[in-house]
Amino acid sequence: MNAPIRLLVIGGVAAGASCAARARRLAEHAEIIMIERGPDVSFANCGLPYYVGGEIADRNALAVQTPASLKALLNLDVRTGCEALQIDRTTRQVEVKYLADGRHEWIRYDALMLAPGASPLRPALPGIADARIHTLRNLQDMDGIVAATAEGQRAVVIGAGFIGIEMAEQLRHKGLSVEMVELQTQIFPQLDAPMTALLESELRHHDIGITLGDGVARFEPQDGHLRCHLNSGKQLDADLVILSIGVKPDTELARAAGLELGPRGHIVVNEFMQTSDPAIYAAGDAVQTRDRVLDSPVNVPMGGPANRQGRAAADHLFMPATARPYPGSLGTAIVRGFEVAAGITGWSEKRLATAGKPYQSVTVNAEHHAGYYPGARPLTLKIIWAPDSGQLLGAQVTGFEGIDKRLDVLATAILGGMTIDDLCHLELAYAPPFGAAKDVINLAGFAACNRRDGLVRHTSALPADPQVQIVDVRPKPLAEAFPVPGTVINIPFPTLRASLDKLDRSRPVVTVCAFGKMSYFAARLLAQEGFDVTSFSGGMRGNIDPRSPGKLPAA
Amino acid sequence: MNAPIRLLVIGGVAAGASCAARARRLAEHAEIIMIERGPDVSFANCGLPYYVGGEIADRNALAVQTPASLKALLNLDVRTGCEALQIDRTTRQVEVKYLADGRHEWIRYDALMLAPGASPLRPALPGIADARIHTLRNLQDMDGIVAATAEGQRAVVIGAGFIGIEMAEQLRHKGLSVEMVELQTQIFPQLDAPMTALLESELRHHDIGITLGDGVARFEPQDGHLRCHLNSGKQLDADLVILSIGVKPDTELARAAGLELGPRGHIVVNEFMQTSDPAIYAAGDAVQTRDRVLDSPVNVPMGGPANRQGRAAADHLFMPATARPYPGSLGTAIVRGFEVAAGITGWSEKRLATAGKPYQSVTVNAEHHAGYYPGARPLTLKIIWAPDSGQLLGAQVTGFEGIDKRLDVLATAILGGMTIDDLCHLELAYAPPFGAAKDVINLAGFAACNRRDGLVRHTSALPADPQVQIVDVRPKPLAEAFPVPGTVINIPFPTLRASLDKLDRSRPVVTVCAFGKMSYFAARLLAQEGFDVTSFSGGMRGNIDPRSPGKLPAA
Repeated sequence: MNAPIRLLVIGGVAAGASCAARARRLAEHAEIIMIERGPDVSFANCGLPYYVGGEIADRNALAVQTPASLKALLNLDVRTGCEALQIDRTTRQVEVKYLADGRHEWIRYDALMLAPGASPLRPALPGIADARIHTLRNLQDMDGIVAATAEGQRAVVIGAGFIGIEMAEQLRHKGLSVEMVELQTQIFPQLDAPMTALLESELRHHDIGITLGDGVARFEPQDGHLRCHLNSGKQLDADLVILSIGVKPDTELARAAGLELGPRGHIVVNEFMQTSDPAIYAAGDAVQTRDRVLDSPVNVPMGGPANRQGRAAADHLFMPATARPYPGSLGTAIVRGFEVAAGITGWSEKRLATAGKPYQSVTVNAEHHAGYYPGARPLTLKIIWAPDSGQLLGAQVTGFEGIDKRLDVLATAILGGMTIDDLCHLELAYAPPFGAAKDVINLAGFAACNRRDGLVRHTSALPADPQVQIVDVRPKPLAEAFPVPGTVINIPFPTLRASLDKLDRSRPVVTVCAFGKMSYFAARLLAQEGFDVTSFSGGMRGNIDPRSPGKLPAA
Repeated sequence: MNAPIRLLVIGGVAAGASCAARARRLAEHAEIIMIERGPDVSFANCGLPYYVGGEIADRNALAVQTPASLKALLNLDVRTGCEALQIDRTTRQVEVKYLADGRHEWIRYDALMLAPGASPLRPALPGIADARIHTLRNLQDMDGIVAATAEGQRAVVIGAGFIGIEMAEQLRHKGLSVEMVELQTQIFPQLDAPMTALLESELRHHDIGITLGDGVARFEPQDGHLRCHLNSGKQLDADLVILSIGVKPDTELARAAGLELGPRGHIVVNEFMQTSDPAIYAAGDAVQTRDRVLDSPVNVPMGGPANRQGRAAADHLFMPATARPYPGSLGTAIVRGFEVAAGITGWSEKRLATAGKPYQSVTVNAEHHAGYYPGARPLTLKIIWAPDSGQLLGAQVTGFEGIDKRLDVLATAILGGMTIDDLCHLELAYAPPFGAAKDVINLAGFAACNRRDGLVRHTSALPADPQVQIVDVRPKPLAEAFPVPGTVINIPFPTLRASLDKLDRSRPVVTVCAFGKMSYFAARLLAQEGFDVTSFSGGMRGNIDPRSPGKLPAA
């Protein structure tokens, strides 16, 4: 049996609670103390936006466990309203303060788990202290936002990451008017900009105002509301503001204890989640682990990694001989905005470009299940791979249905070290309600291999050079209704073989269609007829909201 | 560029049409002739049942391409109503017969693709020639079935594989009464029996009669209907019969040409889909390829593999230097019956047992997305792995939502050679509408590793030995409402630590709960208190329809 040691866990949400629960399964007789500064433990923080909008009606559903339930189920000594003040690593003690009565206590530990999480950023802007400016981390923040909302009010959401997008949707559900402001020139900045076009269109379609490439400079109380002055000079009036511009790790305690921190203040851990002091573990939003694709340091402040990191730490503490390392984080993320979902796994094109890593990418469009079965809806998939090995580096998906499925398959493929050739031959579940004989993931593999094998050249931008002949191979009515910008020759694909004399063989050709499929067919045909030809990857559909296909996105 | 060779394709549905289409992209100037005995090419055969029930309302949606559209798009010479009679391999010619006028012709080829498909089995039983006995392979069969159906009629579906299940559902949608008969003692025989319980319950819930472990002996016309006499003596009266007991490869042409066939009559091909004559390729339901898990010969008569095999053959023919091998088939399959789906990828437990291969398995239950978000529905996942390496061999999933997603992830994991440890750390997409911080696939990995690491022993059957103490750790009301069969001690988990004196330490214990999770917690607790304890894997919920949890399945 394990020796009855004392594990002290600081932080009682995802990583901390997972660590404590796993520890109890492994060590029935260990003494496990979990302290939490807030009043709640093990609550569903990812669900908070959905309670604000009423999709989750029962607040108790979010409070997954209580100190009493954790005592009954896991024999944990849970102390809420208890703040850790300092760590004495030499004597292995933590000084805590009980917020209810101000009492101080030193708690001895044999092993310590730091799961402090991360706080929403709240930059020192003029007017930032106004009570109408909310961040969202816990149930109390959520309650504050709910109390501040009333139909017809004006909300400004600053930051269009996934929390900002979820909050914008939920505030619209409650009948508020919503304006979003994002410093970057796109929403959901983890994604490459073109993959956010559909989601942006969906948010606008639901009357959410979106200001991109602009940030807030200051807040000014004004006639009973709050005026947000943006860097551009634009002004937005708000009855409440949601500040969702990112988080910073809560690592002052670790820093003061002399534990090694990364360049952005995250706690550095080894593959068993041990900090630079092997008696102290850390897990969750506050730590820096390894990227699973390119093995660089990375912080992924998400619930899934936090839970599994906490569990991995308990494994190492209580079964060191058989514990497996935490393999690192991938950065899989998904967000829903009304009917549209968008997500990413692994590396984006822009992140690879910034890091100076070589990559290639293709974007394909297809329907989420067999087109002949009712209800098929379009989706767009972008995959990114290493040119030398063909190994997958990342993927992004957007559309209406089946987005999470493709992301999960591609996350698995990346973690399995799979290549674009492997994607061609994934044997996925196919019955008409569920898939297609060739899933969009197979199609992406085909397109990538075609490119690797020199069968086709892709471009993701229409040529500006007037020497280039742009050939739109869509049917004439579609080509006329939703024209490709610029000087374009419309040759519907079925007539292309008989129309080669309409094209100048001495000038390059770019082929364009709706989905990127017929343009590829046309490029193959023209290449074999001796033309210098490039296919417009992804098609017009990939750049256009399929519900209003005439409108090009702002990006 | 490629020399303008002549490719002759026999069979114009999935494999043949994919081969011809890919061939055209690679070889604009090749002569490509595709012959098809039936009147249709490239139709959506997987959609046929859904037209019978009216879910697919437009018959034209099933006719994906026509000879004219294939001429326009691909410059194919498509000849329907054209039957191949014999192959002269020496002179590379195929004798064909045009069914319309009886004319014969020898067609020369440089390369030949055989994509003949497979025919529904129609055993030589007494009465089998009756016109009321239907099989389903093509649009004409479908039209015949539609013509034979009318509300209130009695249908008997013989064979409860996926076509049988889909047809049973669709005939119920049309208002017929439906009886199913299956020779095996379970429906959907690819799966292990316990994983079919929910789907069987769903079919019965929709008033489909199911007779298991029985087959049809003879058919007898009777007072304007057809009486099906079963082996057991049971009689079922039918206005129409659907015979869906499997398929046999249409390989007489290949056999007569002296091509190598496998033990069950399938065409043997190499990794580039070449038959024993390298000028002749074969693909689709009629071929035998390699199993991707255990590298044994296998036939997977499904649309996905057929499409990709046809494409792989064209690659080898027209770009031999860069063509990648067809990596083999996995056998991923899914079926929907009303609200329930069930599926498999890789090997089942019973198939491994029959083959004498070592394996271990666990079954876990969870909800398809975060339980705190509305609409979470239960699903059950079984994974099977190699005990020595932990490598995944197969998986089965059943439930209401997200079944295809888990199957696809697990198919990908199997193809990536991933292990139970890898499943623990799959980083899947999580936002409340889409998943959970720990997906059921992570949970299955945890459970498998717990077993591998000796943390828990599982049993999939309740003990018959009265010496064993069965401890039901569910809350008392649940334990009383849906009792575990036999003599059972109910000790709700939160009270277990204080109730150890209710148990006899000298006798073994099996712990039972609803999902298999609390019983694992209890087993860990009791093991560390010195008990000889085993957890009932999968819980009562896994054996019981969650909509009528008091009813144990027949199996």
